[in-house]
Amino acid sequence: MDSEMVKGRLKKLNKLMKKSGIDALVLTVAENVSFFTGFNGHDSWAIIKGTKVTLVTDSRYTEQAQKECLCCKIVQQDKGIAKATGEILNKLDSVKIVGVENRSSMQMFRTLKKHTKARVKASDSLAEKVRREKDSKEQLCISKAAKIAWKALDKALEQLRIGITESEWTGIVELEIRKLNSVISFDTIIAFGANGSLPHYQPGNRKLKKNDYILIDFGAKYKGYHSDLTRCFAVGKPSAFYRKAYDTVYRAQQEAVKNVRAGVKLSDLDSIARKVIADASLPVYGHGTGHGVGLEIHEAPMISKSSKDKLRAGDVVTIEPGIYMPGKLGIRIEDDVLVTETGCRVLSKDDKFGFSVPGLQTLIIT
Amino acid sequence: MDSEMVKGRLKKLNKLMKKSGIDALVLTVAENVSFFTGFNGHDSWAIIKGTKVTLVTDSRYTEQAQKECLCCKIVQQDKGIAKATGEILNKLDSVKIVGVENRSSMQMFRTLKKHTKARVKASDSLAEKVRREKDSKEQLCISKAAKIAWKALDKALEQLRIGITESEWTGIVELEIRKLNSVISFDTIIAFGANGSLPHYQPGNRKLKKNDYILIDFGAKYKGYHSDLTRCFAVGKPSAFYRKAYDTVYRAQQEAVKNVRAGVKLSDLDSIARKVIADASLPVYGHGTGHGVGLEIHEAPMISKSSKDKLRAGDVVTIEPGIYMPGKLGIRIEDDVLVTETGCRVLSKDDKFGFSVPGLQTLIIT
Repeated sequence: MDSEMVKGRLKKLNKLMKKSGIDALVLTVAENVSFFTGFNGHDSWAIIKGTKVTLVTDSRYTEQAQKECLCCKIVQQDKGIAKATGEILNKLDSVKIVGVENRSSMQMFRTLKKHTKARVKASDSLAEKVRREKDSKEQLCISKAAKIAWKALDKALEQLRIGITESEWTGIVELEIRKLNSVISFDTIIAFGANGSLPHYQPGNRKLKKNDYILIDFGAKYKGYHSDLTRCFAVGKPSAFYRKAYDTVYRAQQEAVKNVRAGVKLSDLDSIARKVIADASLPVYGHGTGHGVGLEIHEAPMISKSSKDKLRAGDVVTIEPGIYMPGKLGIRIEDDVLVTETGCRVLSKDDKFGFSVPGLQTLIIT
Repeated sequence: MDSEMVKGRLKKLNKLMKKSGIDALVLTVAENVSFFTGFNGHDSWAIIKGTKVTLVTDSRYTEQAQKECLCCKIVQQDKGIAKATGEILNKLDSVKIVGVENRSSMQMFRTLKKHTKARVKASDSLAEKVRREKDSKEQLCISKAAKIAWKALDKALEQLRIGITESEWTGIVELEIRKLNSVISFDTIIAFGANGSLPHYQPGNRKLKKNDYILIDFGAKYKGYHSDLTRCFAVGKPSAFYRKAYDTVYRAQQEAVKNVRAGVKLSDLDSIARKVIADASLPVYGHGTGHGVGLEIHEAPMISKSSKDKLRAGDVVTIEPGIYMPGKLGIRIEDDVLVTETGCRVLSKDDKFGFSVPGLQTLIIT
């Protein structure tokens, strides 16, 4: 991370800090720490005071931090991170009010408070606000993260065979991601047949049958940025009902994508996708229609009926409606989409492997 | 999870709740929720009021919860979990003081507080206290989790070749774990050569050489319980210095294991392992000597110099001293050990594959 980039990010954060009336901010969320320091490890915090950034870490990560964090001071602590951070804050000039991210645990917050002379208060998601608008480099990272995932899926599909378990095929998909020197975005969901009706299914020992259905919800990471993708396949000849349901989900997703544009109400976008499914007299999904994706797999904004906000240019969101019928089927289609002033760009569009073509892909496995 | 088991666990928890002066307890930590409900999903909370348990979840998990949670009431919410939990608490009889786990975020705590009529306070790790003593079924799960890991490692070693990247071999280890219908315990650490000096290394595209060193820190899960294991191998002929360092780490680990027994001070046990390394004039590791392992990969007790507590019968802990010399080498040996009144039992002992034999294993790869 070059120093100009850090400066730009800090400038935005400092502005929000000033507005919140805090003199220093303690970042405890790993992705926020990473965004402002370049550090990719865990269990480390960052103290922001104007343009000065201090990374508080421990001996497990010191060597890594020295390689990754070129623009900040690194402090190795061994007395507990909250206590150590409190003591560092005490040595900083003119810090009267300290903000601590409100996603920190109560426990950490209280320990920090105990060891800090300044007034400590829980702070709203300031770093997340800066992170929400993705610049062109970040957009490219998400797009590359999607490309890696598609490439891995293509390779993994070649290794699909009747009788393979969900669990083993999950391992194969993940190995293909590893071969591309990447890592998974989140716990891969691979569900055969009716198992797809559990939106957060954990792959098990269900075996693939001759006539079957596959749902895969997965992603890869590139430079810390996530892709989050879902596709469904039919093995052999799909039933007419499955095909109808699939086409409905596809239309719902396309309708939502078509309506993505800066200024659109998140709750309106959510309704647009749901309406397509309701109009087909099929059961409407219980989860949201999508969520922001970036350094975190789920981040602002959330596309749901209770969202009060609007889409903004620079948001990258998933669009992922579904149909779930327990014991029967589960279908979801998901892409990652960049919001622009005039519409959107599908960052996860795939020209090479055909995973973005309309219509249900059926696999013939011999 | 049978109802007798849940009853026994609740009895212990209720006792601690009474001592803390709380009428109901909100569990927000996934592993605590799982321990008292049997639910293995995420983003769900449990309300404990005497022997009554309520799982608060959302539509993504309702079907799964219905299958997994036979002893508790399931509530599907769609208004935000903290708000929903607050409203459920308001309907319970004689709840004047509610405890919320202090590992919950500030944000969640405040939202819950806002929507609850009762007094809400942050509660110390009560559920973790009940979880600390592992019963025989839990011990067996950890032991099985270790067996799965060893079996996978054995298979993965057969697929090792000169030129393979850390990342690809990591994928192979993880695929072998998947083939056994299990999942990884945590992000697998596989480091070739000097990369082992970073205790929390992330596998990259470093290729295996003809004369090289491998560090693998990994584990598998069985029924939610983790194994956490580290081994080092030499590829080709190791240097005399590496061999000396390896033998020192091995002696440190064995010396610590020999001294594990209920009643031993955690800080003393920590010193015992460190002393072996210091006496050999080699650099002493910065991390702790071990940690509890169970439903979480890191749980109580922590074996470190600052620990105030003692080992107790029923604790399952890792013993994992190491030597780290940046740019030169990194060695760690780790097993999972059950503490008994008279000593310990190494749950991760492996008779079949020879990963527990003394002395450095050297691999001849053709």
